[in-house]
Amino acid sequence: MAVEHTSASLPTLTELENNDAFTHRHIGSDQLEQQAMLESIGLNSLAELIGETVPGSIRLNKELELPAGKTEAQALSQLQALAKQNTVNKTYIGMGYYNTEVPNVILRNLLENPGWYTAYTPYQPEISQGRLEMLLNFQQMVMDLTGMDVANASLLDEATAAAEAMTLCLRSVGRNKAASQTYFVADDVHPQTIDVIKTRAQWLGINIIVGTPHTELVNHDVFGAQLQYPGTYGNITDIGSIVEIAKQQGAMVSVASDLLALTLLKSPGELGADIVLGNSQRFGVPLGFGGPHAAFFATTSKLKRSVPGRIIGVSKDSRGNPALRMAMQTREQHIRREKATSNICTAQALLANMAAAYAIYHGSEGLKTIAERVHRLTRILHHGLVEMGFQCNDSFFDTLTFKVGSDQETIIQRALKYGCNLRQIGSDRLGVSLDETTRSEDLVNLFNIFMGEGKELNIASIDRQISANNSQRAHTQKAIGLADEHRRTDVILNHPVFNSYHSETDMMRYLKQLENKDYSLVHGMIPLGSCTMKLNAAAEMLPVSWPEFSNIHPFTPKDQVPGYLTMIRQLEEALVEITGYDAISMQPNSGAQGEYAGLLAIRNYQRANQQEHRDVCLIPSSAHGTNPASAAMLGMKIVIVACDNNGNVDVDDLKTKAEEYSSRLSALMVTYPSTHGVYEEEIRTICQIIHDNGGQVYMDGANMNALVGISRPGDIGSDVSHLNLHKTFAIPHGGGGPGMGPIGVKSHLTPYLPNHTVSPIEGHNEGIGAVSAAPFGSSSILPISWMYITMLGSKGLRESTELAILHANYMAKRLGDHYQILYQGRNNHVAHECIIDIRPIKEAFGVTEEDIAKRLMDYGFHAPTMSFPVAGTLMIEPTESESMEEIDRFIDAMISIRKEIDQVASGAWPKDNNPLVNAPHTMKDLAEEEWHHPYSRKVAAFPSPYSHKAKYWPAANRIDNVYGDRNFICSCPDIEVYQ
Amino acid sequence: MAVEHTSASLPTLTELENNDAFTHRHIGSDQLEQQAMLESIGLNSLAELIGETVPGSIRLNKELELPAGKTEAQALSQLQALAKQNTVNKTYIGMGYYNTEVPNVILRNLLENPGWYTAYTPYQPEISQGRLEMLLNFQQMVMDLTGMDVANASLLDEATAAAEAMTLCLRSVGRNKAASQTYFVADDVHPQTIDVIKTRAQWLGINIIVGTPHTELVNHDVFGAQLQYPGTYGNITDIGSIVEIAKQQGAMVSVASDLLALTLLKSPGELGADIVLGNSQRFGVPLGFGGPHAAFFATTSKLKRSVPGRIIGVSKDSRGNPALRMAMQTREQHIRREKATSNICTAQALLANMAAAYAIYHGSEGLKTIAERVHRLTRILHHGLVEMGFQCNDSFFDTLTFKVGSDQETIIQRALKYGCNLRQIGSDRLGVSLDETTRSEDLVNLFNIFMGEGKELNIASIDRQISANNSQRAHTQKAIGLADEHRRTDVILNHPVFNSYHSETDMMRYLKQLENKDYSLVHGMIPLGSCTMKLNAAAEMLPVSWPEFSNIHPFTPKDQVPGYLTMIRQLEEALVEITGYDAISMQPNSGAQGEYAGLLAIRNYQRANQQEHRDVCLIPSSAHGTNPASAAMLGMKIVIVACDNNGNVDVDDLKTKAEEYSSRLSALMVTYPSTHGVYEEEIRTICQIIHDNGGQVYMDGANMNALVGISRPGDIGSDVSHLNLHKTFAIPHGGGGPGMGPIGVKSHLTPYLPNHTVSPIEGHNEGIGAVSAAPFGSSSILPISWMYITMLGSKGLRESTELAILHANYMAKRLGDHYQILYQGRNNHVAHECIIDIRPIKEAFGVTEEDIAKRLMDYGFHAPTMSFPVAGTLMIEPTESESMEEIDRFIDAMISIRKEIDQVASGAWPKDNNPLVNAPHTMKDLAEEEWHHPYSRKVAAFPSPYSHKAKYWPAANRIDNVYGDRNFICSCPDIEVYQ
Repeated sequence: MAVEHTSASLPTLTELENNDAFTHRHIGSDQLEQQAMLESIGLNSLAELIGETVPGSIRLNKELELPAGKTEAQALSQLQALAKQNTVNKTYIGMGYYNTEVPNVILRNLLENPGWYTAYTPYQPEISQGRLEMLLNFQQMVMDLTGMDVANASLLDEATAAAEAMTLCLRSVGRNKAASQTYFVADDVHPQTIDVIKTRAQWLGINIIVGTPHTELVNHDVFGAQLQYPGTYGNITDIGSIVEIAKQQGAMVSVASDLLALTLLKSPGELGADIVLGNSQRFGVPLGFGGPHAAFFATTSKLKRSVPGRIIGVSKDSRGNPALRMAMQTREQHIRREKATSNICTAQALLANMAAAYAIYHGSEGLKTIAERVHRLTRILHHGLVEMGFQCNDSFFDTLTFKVGSDQETIIQRALKYGCNLRQIGSDRLGVSLDETTRSEDLVNLFNIFMGEGKELNIASIDRQISANNSQRAHTQKAIGLADEHRRTDVILNHPVFNSYHSETDMMRYLKQLENKDYSLVHGMIPLGSCTMKLNAAAEMLPVSWPEFSNIHPFTPKDQVPGYLTMIRQLEEALVEITGYDAISMQPNSGAQGEYAGLLAIRNYQRANQQEHRDVCLIPSSAHGTNPASAAMLGMKIVIVACDNNGNVDVDDLKTKAEEYSSRLSALMVTYPSTHGVYEEEIRTICQIIHDNGGQVYMDGANMNALVGISRPGDIGSDVSHLNLHKTFAIPHGGGGPGMGPIGVKSHLTPYLPNHTVSPIEGHNEGIGAVSAAPFGSSSILPISWMYITMLGSKGLRESTELAILHANYMAKRLGDHYQILYQGRNNHVAHECIIDIRPIKEAFGVTEEDIAKRLMDYGFHAPTMSFPVAGTLMIEPTESESMEEIDRFIDAMISIRKEIDQVASGAWPKDNNPLVNAPHTMKDLAEEEWHHPYSRKVAAFPSPYSHKAKYWPAANRIDNVYGDRNFICSCPDIEVYQ
Repeated sequence: MAVEHTSASLPTLTELENNDAFTHRHIGSDQLEQQAMLESIGLNSLAELIGETVPGSIRLNKELELPAGKTEAQALSQLQALAKQNTVNKTYIGMGYYNTEVPNVILRNLLENPGWYTAYTPYQPEISQGRLEMLLNFQQMVMDLTGMDVANASLLDEATAAAEAMTLCLRSVGRNKAASQTYFVADDVHPQTIDVIKTRAQWLGINIIVGTPHTELVNHDVFGAQLQYPGTYGNITDIGSIVEIAKQQGAMVSVASDLLALTLLKSPGELGADIVLGNSQRFGVPLGFGGPHAAFFATTSKLKRSVPGRIIGVSKDSRGNPALRMAMQTREQHIRREKATSNICTAQALLANMAAAYAIYHGSEGLKTIAERVHRLTRILHHGLVEMGFQCNDSFFDTLTFKVGSDQETIIQRALKYGCNLRQIGSDRLGVSLDETTRSEDLVNLFNIFMGEGKELNIASIDRQISANNSQRAHTQKAIGLADEHRRTDVILNHPVFNSYHSETDMMRYLKQLENKDYSLVHGMIPLGSCTMKLNAAAEMLPVSWPEFSNIHPFTPKDQVPGYLTMIRQLEEALVEITGYDAISMQPNSGAQGEYAGLLAIRNYQRANQQEHRDVCLIPSSAHGTNPASAAMLGMKIVIVACDNNGNVDVDDLKTKAEEYSSRLSALMVTYPSTHGVYEEEIRTICQIIHDNGGQVYMDGANMNALVGISRPGDIGSDVSHLNLHKTFAIPHGGGGPGMGPIGVKSHLTPYLPNHTVSPIEGHNEGIGAVSAAPFGSSSILPISWMYITMLGSKGLRESTELAILHANYMAKRLGDHYQILYQGRNNHVAHECIIDIRPIKEAFGVTEEDIAKRLMDYGFHAPTMSFPVAGTLMIEPTESESMEEIDRFIDAMISIRKEIDQVASGAWPKDNNPLVNAPHTMKDLAEEEWHHPYSRKVAAFPSPYSHKAKYWPAANRIDNVYGDRNFICSCPDIEVYQ
């Protein structure tokens, strides 16, 4: 960037225009630092490093055919132009997605705040107490509103939550019932939910019956039933009586419901449901063309140990103070490799936190006021249109379905003139769902839309009429809208947290208090191996809040969203170029979901080619636990392939097993570079072996950050991969979600990409069904990756990869003098991360990888990945976005910790009283009068010069995981507990 | 808000629609809390409180005629509709205002972050080290670029900075020179600057000569000269030779300059300037239709003790560590009442911090690259158009002035078709200023604009031609653009801070580190009496970043900004209704500036009515120091009026003095409610006395938060007031600015409101000139107050005032049992703030108001206002936005501190070693091995339950102000000092 004027040689205009500026903002180290790092590993250039590290056999020997980089302003302006092509209509489509007013205090201080959105999944609870508390609030809110005993901290979307409910029922009913292999789905469940349930059922051998539960359920022998309450067409089903029918045959009942309706409606829990799930989107989370939103999932206490996804639980720390952490999880408890019951991993923490904050800000009374208003306006609409001769449902909360016969198209067109989207149902009906944003003036428009202009109805007078009718109505008359017997009478949301922060000042401070407890990228490096915690640039994040991206219903007619579709297509094209695949599906909204979708494509492709019997999935022992879990969800038999001492796939073992299962071989799932952080030389051979034996190669894209611009999975033998956009392509982790896991496939698999029943996707026409509720997954965060790719351009993308590799090798080099580096590839280089082995230290001196992880907190760092992929190790990934200064600071901390270990080794510090075993240290520790440690307070809390400069305080001492699991609590503790 | 359903009585639809929702977000206490507070002061209703507190004689007995409140969404949508009426053209107007790219990392993490914008002026430096560091960076940047020894931490705008420079010259030159009373202003100074200088000069008896300095300066006997470098038309004046001419006659030289140009140009310091000033806007601060931006002001070291405005200086804390605070200030050192040399008070801290962050992010090389690009493109434009026969200046950095003769209008119209605004100069010239955002493609448009379409010029080929010319050019040939002899060769911005944070990750973390050092409203109450630290709601802040408000040049043709003008007019109309005045001027961009503008209107009105001899300004002894300072700036004689023991104006003394000076009486300046926090009963009488003696009443609006909706200055006898929009109308304090101080006047003064030479203001036609550089002051923050008023509506505004009064009275009531309340009004009530007297405590036990202020930090609070308006007191203003819980927490802290004082009193703790005198305590204190205090570590740092829950750590121990003033340093210390 240095441009010095000399009268002899002027810099070129192109140099001055500096369109690559963003690359130098994204990459943390500058040229001088890069040179120093190269020197320290004995090399002269990046090219040399890449040449020595990446096997020639997989190298991409050209620049990616992508446009050159753009400045932040240029990219934003280009994206703005696309955004402007979208029409932001008022949506009345409903179907689980509603307009909502994001409280601005939450928008600014949570959604748009890197202190919240750059945090990682709270695997290190001592430095995650803030969002753990908010997630606990989310659970409490869900439990209150659903009337259930246990709730998790979110799932991906309502439809996948329903699919999870089905499998939970299957494994929780008695063996006899399970044998029926039949699941009943009410015909008024949202169609996209039915779509996903069917997809999930197809490879588990589950038979799905869609029907009217009141009349048909009794005729079938089922292990469970899925209901919708209120139904997709607006009706408030009497689920109590259906539950009775189900219970009589020993079947379980899952109810999909709506949190706003539940503020007024009798809870499914009270009515006997076993599972209640739904979408919390309308609690202050933008529509976003389908996501991300947090689904909720609640059960009876009986099912608590089978609940999929993460549950936050209350435990205590080493000082005995209450402290939160993920309950019942050694990482993800339900992902038990081939015994997995779910592959759920990434949740929707950021969005769950927004929904919880919304409920806290409004409180019980505020929510009820909103719900009553929505209902009253629906009641007025109903009254007005019924008086005018329209037929529609008399039982409803916020949704009316009108029979309009041949007027359907006329009314839809009139609605468009008013800038409104109605729900088109069949050829003769129209649905209207009202929401928080609907006001009286909108009703006037709706009347005009349905009746044509000129026939004005007076809202106030209809309202008076309804009130009069209501007070006169005899109890024998049929109730309109929400009947008294459907109204809930129990107290909801009476925990203090829902009654304390109703002014903006209080809410802002509460959010800030929680934020300040948590370690995020605003504090320092989060060197989590396999998680790629790179910069989430502000310019990438800005478009997420643009109304043209955030206020679009997922089922908006496509001619209103050309900008969205173009942005998605451009992102797909870029990912095609980057991966070497032929097509992309944006539907999977997490990495694990992508794995599932990828295997699904393989299995459907094989079935179409009369290879349905191929059901064996080979998986190396080093694989991420989601790999076997995803395979298990497709009913596959998992066969483990051994790894050699270098962490590489044992090619001989692979060959043996591929041949052994040749007739049944469906796929190999392999991560590249390996989860051990090395580029396996034999990857092309490995792929060839699989193909030779009739199988397909699924290449897990978790480590794509080591490949972009230097190698392409599609070129080296893989048939399908998922891409974690939240790792490699700069979507922030949100403190535990959202994520996005689109998949890329070779052309033979393209027809088998996910489709969507409500919003069919061109080219994905083999009808394999949907894997997510929304056609393009979490669409509103796709602009982040679009911006990332657009700003970096082909050169910047490649350089980012190269720098990620340099940073990791520099890290490995310096750490290698003090710790044992576990795996290395060619020329003793690692890929984009490195593993250090703590087992020898543990064995010799009793200091564990956990002690080191917690001690790093005292130094102001987030721990690396612990005990994955190898127990007793730490896996470190600095990414390209960290500066050499920060990397050195981390290394210095690790070296300092190594010296502390020596103190334990030498006996200077006892094994049970040293700064490692006592870590992390809190400010409460420092405030103690008595200090019973052989090291000083300064050593405890300020062990490095940097910790003086910018001290980060863990909010809790070391947390006792076991205690909390023995004494399981997933609701908000009484306030006294904290005092 | 509670809306419960019973089948008998439904809530009304209006109740459900809840359009007043924002009022309940803005006001911190809920109805239950309000009832409890009322009870504690023995009252039943708010009405009763207001009845007992506010004199009937001043009560407004009707609701304000303003629209009802609106929800956040409704107000935003209404404002959005106005914003959309503005045309966001590309501006080439220049004149000190340029397009700039706000780095998105700074936008999101600083400008849009309440952690930065809700902080107060850093009067309590121990909890303000973050922004003090950034302001020091700002000073360092200014000193580097200007080549001067000393810089302040910003002034309001370039034009007022130039006016300050004039008076600084007047009082710094020898007595003989000053006697000339003549000041020379170069005719290529920006016209708005000349306008403000002339306004300021007119009442100080200074004669202004505008002319060409090279030829005319020598002919005049002047005490100083103001130059512009580069000049307003683009020319790079040889200021060195002008300085010589000036020096020969002993005159001082002030140079207005441009920071971007100075990255390449020889510094004015090197060329002998005494003062260098300018606007830092183009360093990443949005245009905002004129502001807010930070002006800079730098001088030689000789003048350091005369510099107006705040200077941040390095001192040390009680542990001997380096620490920052405002230097040479007992509050505002230059505001010495009638001896004042300036009334500057509020600065532009937030914007100065943005500009400093911009320089840090780009660094020296980055800035030079931008400057070289801007210059090169200007060079290309020059070459292309000169080749085509246009005439323009050959010496330039970024600005060209073309002689276009009668084509002027044609070219302007063509520019508009391209969405571009050029600068219109006279009837035959056009100015074009390029900037950071200009790219090659813009030049193509500019060529088309000037020459008509079809004559395409090739940018690259012109560029090559220039390079060729350049390398061939003989030294005798005339240089085009920036001549070598004008280029600077010294090293700039080489302090580590400008070389450390060039990646977005590093920058984000640096901003976050600084933010986390500072106490702001996100942490808790800032109960600063007279400062009204109320909620700055997110919904109010959002529009500030909308491009339709932020990307508008102040001199944009008015037909392009109807939305802006309507928004401003609506805000004016609302303020007219709220104040009872007849007209508003939005021009003054601070409270003190408003005072000045108000007095200016009075003096000009009196002059127009042959009362120019009226020059006496009566000011009560309790007045804010800016009152006499403002009067002094208008050459008025200040006569102090006594106050009685209750803090009220001594009416007898007032009468005596009014009559004594009857023939010379110009005005009374009076604050209402008084600075003592009480509603004086006699205010109408006081106004009458002034009017009877031929004077005008200036009512200081600092305490307007106690009046809105319940009393109107214009109704009770006042002729003019300023309104601190940053106190009463929700503009955040920005950590020490921006502010806005519009004035309201009765109709007889309307013609004497500020006008503007570049952008004349309708109705303000008596030509009194401008008081600020921009016609509507800091326009881009006016949407904040617009949103505030629109959302609250008439009822919400009144309720906010009532609650502010209730909260203060509750505070006074509870504190009154433990401290002496200094002044009370009717029925022993206070207004919206209360003063507690620490003098008895100090006298008896040696504990000072400062000890209490610092000790409050340990409890997690910002101190109240110290020793204003009475030395040895604390003035507390809770505002309506705090909850009872927070108010109680503060009171509990104060009571706990009172008990600590008792411990000192009883001798349990020595006078020189107790938690008060040692406060604040830092985490470093706690980390000490040895603890030499008679109180525990817990008492030191965790004195209350709340401090456990949300501990805020002061970043420094008590700071030694005197040390820093004795050893004055206003530049960034060497990095080692911190280590």
